Amino acid sequence: MPHPLDTFFAPDSIALIGASRDLEKIPGRLLSMLRKNEYPGQIYPINPNYGDIDGLKCYKSISDVGQPIDLAIVIIPARAVLAVLEQCAAAGVKNAVIISSGFAEEGGDSAAMQDAIVALAKRTGMRISGPNAEGFLSEVQKVAATFSPTVDVKPGHVPLVATKRRAAIVAQSGGIGFAIKHRAKALGVAISYCVSAGNESDLGAGEFLDYMVQDASTDVILLFIEGIRDVDKFLAAARRAAESGKPVIVTKVGRSGAGERAAASHTASMAGWSAAYDAVFAKYGFIVSNDLDEAVAIAAVLTTNPLPKGDRVAVLTVSGGAGIWGADTVALQGLQVPELSPAIQTEIKKLLPSYGAAGNPIDVTAQGVHSGGLQNSIDLLSASGEVDAILVVLSLSSDTRVPFKQAELRPVISAQHKPIVFYSYTLPSAFARSEFAACGAVVLSGLTHAGVAMRRMVERARFKLAPKVDATAPPCDLSAHLKSATLSEHDSKALLRAAGIAVPDEVLVTEKSGLDAAIVQLGFPLVAKIQSRDIPHKSEVGGVRVGIASKGEVFLAYEALLNNARRHRPDAGIQGVLIGSMAKKGVEIIVGTMLDATFGPMIMVGLGGVTTELFRDVVYRPAPVSTVEAGAMLAELKAAPLLNGFRGAAQADVPALSQLIAQVSVLAAQQAREISEIELNPVLVHPEGQGVTIVDALVVRKT
Amino acid sequence: MPHPLDTFFAPDSIALIGASRDLEKIPGRLLSMLRKNEYPGQIYPINPNYGDIDGLKCYKSISDVGQPIDLAIVIIPARAVLAVLEQCAAAGVKNAVIISSGFAEEGGDSAAMQDAIVALAKRTGMRISGPNAEGFLSEVQKVAATFSPTVDVKPGHVPLVATKRRAAIVAQSGGIGFAIKHRAKALGVAISYCVSAGNESDLGAGEFLDYMVQDASTDVILLFIEGIRDVDKFLAAARRAAESGKPVIVTKVGRSGAGERAAASHTASMAGWSAAYDAVFAKYGFIVSNDLDEAVAIAAVLTTNPLPKGDRVAVLTVSGGAGIWGADTVALQGLQVPELSPAIQTEIKKLLPSYGAAGNPIDVTAQGVHSGGLQNSIDLLSASGEVDAILVVLSLSSDTRVPFKQAELRPVISAQHKPIVFYSYTLPSAFARSEFAACGAVVLSGLTHAGVAMRRMVERARFKLAPKVDATAPPCDLSAHLKSATLSEHDSKALLRAAGIAVPDEVLVTEKSGLDAAIVQLGFPLVAKIQSRDIPHKSEVGGVRVGIASKGEVFLAYEALLNNARRHRPDAGIQGVLIGSMAKKGVEIIVGTMLDATFGPMIMVGLGGVTTELFRDVVYRPAPVSTVEAGAMLAELKAAPLLNGFRGAAQADVPALSQLIAQVSVLAAQQAREISEIELNPVLVHPEGQGVTIVDALVVRKT
Repeated sequence: MPHPLDTFFAPDSIALIGASRDLEKIPGRLLSMLRKNEYPGQIYPINPNYGDIDGLKCYKSISDVGQPIDLAIVIIPARAVLAVLEQCAAAGVKNAVIISSGFAEEGGDSAAMQDAIVALAKRTGMRISGPNAEGFLSEVQKVAATFSPTVDVKPGHVPLVATKRRAAIVAQSGGIGFAIKHRAKALGVAISYCVSAGNESDLGAGEFLDYMVQDASTDVILLFIEGIRDVDKFLAAARRAAESGKPVIVTKVGRSGAGERAAASHTASMAGWSAAYDAVFAKYGFIVSNDLDEAVAIAAVLTTNPLPKGDRVAVLTVSGGAGIWGADTVALQGLQVPELSPAIQTEIKKLLPSYGAAGNPIDVTAQGVHSGGLQNSIDLLSASGEVDAILVVLSLSSDTRVPFKQAELRPVISAQHKPIVFYSYTLPSAFARSEFAACGAVVLSGLTHAGVAMRRMVERARFKLAPKVDATAPPCDLSAHLKSATLSEHDSKALLRAAGIAVPDEVLVTEKSGLDAAIVQLGFPLVAKIQSRDIPHKSEVGGVRVGIASKGEVFLAYEALLNNARRHRPDAGIQGVLIGSMAKKGVEIIVGTMLDATFGPMIMVGLGGVTTELFRDVVYRPAPVSTVEAGAMLAELKAAPLLNGFRGAAQADVPALSQLIAQVSVLAAQQAREISEIELNPVLVHPEGQGVTIVDALVVRKT
Repeated sequence: MPHPLDTFFAPDSIALIGASRDLEKIPGRLLSMLRKNEYPGQIYPINPNYGDIDGLKCYKSISDVGQPIDLAIVIIPARAVLAVLEQCAAAGVKNAVIISSGFAEEGGDSAAMQDAIVALAKRTGMRISGPNAEGFLSEVQKVAATFSPTVDVKPGHVPLVATKRRAAIVAQSGGIGFAIKHRAKALGVAISYCVSAGNESDLGAGEFLDYMVQDASTDVILLFIEGIRDVDKFLAAARRAAESGKPVIVTKVGRSGAGERAAASHTASMAGWSAAYDAVFAKYGFIVSNDLDEAVAIAAVLTTNPLPKGDRVAVLTVSGGAGIWGADTVALQGLQVPELSPAIQTEIKKLLPSYGAAGNPIDVTAQGVHSGGLQNSIDLLSASGEVDAILVVLSLSSDTRVPFKQAELRPVISAQHKPIVFYSYTLPSAFARSEFAACGAVVLSGLTHAGVAMRRMVERARFKLAPKVDATAPPCDLSAHLKSATLSEHDSKALLRAAGIAVPDEVLVTEKSGLDAAIVQLGFPLVAKIQSRDIPHKSEVGGVRVGIASKGEVFLAYEALLNNARRHRPDAGIQGVLIGSMAKKGVEIIVGTMLDATFGPMIMVGLGGVTTELFRDVVYRPAPVSTVEAGAMLAELKAAPLLNGFRGAAQADVPALSQLIAQVSVLAAQQAREISEIELNPVLVHPEGQGVTIVDALVVRKT
């Protein structure tokens, strides 16, 4: 099915506006790169100062061309860009990529020029990438619409291609995008596209991602982002990627304060809140990597291997120490390195010297290589049901020899029975890379990256996209409950109750005379808590009494709470004292929601108490989530064992907790215009079948 | 000062026993490598089958040489080795390295041959490395006593040397040792020695480490270990390294079950318990790295830079996105990326275009490079007091250009005012590496590795070796307390009390009639706990009652505890019921000791309760520790804030806890022949000045 951006990425004709003969400068380099990379379509250089450039007729303006133009590459001073774009639109140019800098990234007047470009794109329908973009490379259609030095073609250089499947690169930073391409190609990973997004006046990273998701020549996507602007397109593309099973490896920067500071000032981008990004990535099964070589290693294993059926890894080596290191690395990634069965060990040992090892790691030794033990072991392990993936740890520094014969290794790789990952502890030689590439294999040079890549493959194989949550029911009107910026616990619980969420029976006592009725209703033991919209942290003002066991104590507590509040916060408006029963015991959990500036409502769950803050053991997802997805969130907590009968304790009521999380997430999503935060802290999760208790609650109105 | 191993590492003469003309095989390659690397001393090939090899006179046996021989390299069949070693010793050979395999790593008879070698070394004083060793390389003295392909000399190849300081490599795996060398040299890190330890019949990794620590040509040490055998020498060398300030970067494998399985079976080595290794590494300030490129990157920054005076980093870049990534990476390592002062920003901006950024990260932009902004910024930041280190993030893939002039960059690097670390996001070209090497700088290719290396530099600068603990006081005789394999709580506390450690006043009641006296002594509320040497986990048999508030309850509890114990464990011998006061509140801590098979007594401290097990927030050190070192252990806990007034809680009595840890560690060290484990769990740490309470204790006798 044709895609609107096909003419952008595979143009039949390109106008180069600002073309130059000076190969040392960017405009000249753009033309040179296009031709060196053998662009097969028509090129129309545009520059009023030349009659021809490098044998091509040069036009004074775009309107002189008189032929259909799919793509205009614009590299002229910023102040001249808008007028030229108008001419392009008038001439029927379908797409433009603006390389010129000096727009939103400068602020002031320059930002206004970019706004005008946005308006022009909307008005005319011409699709515009940039300004301040580094352009793109389409390897499939041989379109090098970029000045990146990494697309230069060196005479006599034979590109290394190890993979049949291709990776596409979408990057908000051109420098990084083409660096990813540079490193991926050095490993032999075939590339379909590499596109930089620049200032995203019209075309953004989300839309580019969408293109790569539907593109048949792209099998894996590498994504580098600072902050997503076209959020809806991005989310739609993410869902399509997850549904179609096409892996996306994402790097998100601007995670630290310093990074965020630069992201805001440099790229005119909303760097955003990384927890929300990570939540979105987790929802759609994106593979997060914050290291360039690691990301490329993951792409390399995904473009050369099938996904594993499980997490059992065989580590095969020619050097004992390296094999142990390999086994450690894989095991520390949480994968299994099972001891092989006696049957398969016996088979493997047939070609090994006596000091070899077949248990796993399997050390065939240098001598075992000569006798064919390495290939034999791969054959056996590839056919075996005992492991799901193989890590081969070798020394491949030789310029003349590799420990495999192409004719023997290639069929095993081609069969794609299970992932086979190759790592060299010495720096692999170009010769070795090329020999392995001929077999369809990439040689990794980082062991940690190899281990992480194998782990990510296993996770990817396990990933299931959570079904969409039906949030079509009309939201209830809660405006009556949102009278203050910060709701008291009593008001917050009333709002939750109105939204259909179960909260404990409690009595708000506003005069001492009301205490008797509360006691009659609730019995003993009791809890008493001061209620004020001005006091969100009750404990800090001595505003909580627990374990009240008698009528006398209730009255004393009531007095004390009011006195404490008046002493600590004389200005606070006091609603009264909330009297409730002591909650049954349970595991302390925190459930919260917040609005992210980029992605909107988010739901969070974590272990309650001090550990939440100390160990940051919390999990976020975009709201709403289903009970199934809520359950998956809980399983991700390091503290998950506490809910599942840790050290002989009772199994906690995880279904009830999952249901609460789902309900709260739907509430946050439906009320995203009214409510900015909900925090239930703690929620006590009782033993199986006994439900949960929301002990305290706080709702913050959106301002 | 001469060192006994000088004649090993810098021999004036070498006998090559088993020399061969066949360059395809290891014996032939050994001779070839020695000569290609221009060994300046005498070489005596020994082989009864040849009159000469490659122009050198060949001897029938070592006794025919008739000249002093510093080193014999032995590469003959395993069964012939012992006799040849006897001849070597008789001929006065000072050292031997046995390359031949087929000894302890095969087990059985072959292991016995190795034992004979050990005995020979002891008897004759000839020092022996191997068998099953890959030999060593001395770059300083041009001794390539190894068959490793990585020491081959390629015609016309000019080695890259970026560092004045040198790194030595000591590895228990020859394959890995020379792989480290291969990668280090590719970065331009100068090497002093690379030595593989093999089976360590006589010379072990500890003694080799000691050599490198005292060696004046070695500035940094890279250590790869599977399991230390010469423990005392290793520990002495570690202390000397710490005292002399020479950094040791260590990789320890055999950390996972699978790795350990292979370590035990393959290299005849005790892989050991990694927690104890890590504790020893921490004590001596070793830099732990479990990734090859990361370890080499750390060595590269340490051989080219001074240590930083603090943790404030400036990130300097030519590409916005890459700069943000750099700032993120450094910040996620816990280093600061402070915003620069307006004064320095103004200075930096003078050479940047308007869309550059000077806040930190500093983006000089591609244009800023042309105008000299990159060099100018480095000069300013190097002289500035605002940052302690600089990370420069560049694209260095060009074969013809780098963004610095040698004459300008070299003086800043040479001045060594602060660390300046260079990272290229594209793969650096050989040209760029060589240009930077001429300035005394290494180009790193992994950003995470650069960030980790900077972090390790900061930690290294902060490291202080803890003073030795005076454990000369004679240990008290505790044998009377060690009557059973596992001591009851009562017996354990009695032992602690006898050792001078304060435990709470408690009464062991053996008959109901004793309860009254206990009540009189202790008052209410009380705790009652069943005591039996056969019941280490009292709670599991309903053996604990807390919060007992009246005489009636005490009697009921006494009955109930005895009944529960009899019902659950009818076979258990019951000591009685321990009656104690309810402890004051405090932070729950666990303090423990255990004996490591390699390093002996270890002290452990962690946050008590469920979190210990879930989050593994524990810190180990070799015992004994001082109170100062105990305090440092506590500061390493993720949960440390809980002891330091977390969320408005009282500051806990950290001095009292530190003293307890120190006391327990001395006890464990002094009684290492009698006691295998002590566990105090929980210890309650009360508010400042109120001490600690050992609530429960368990001592296990050494079997």
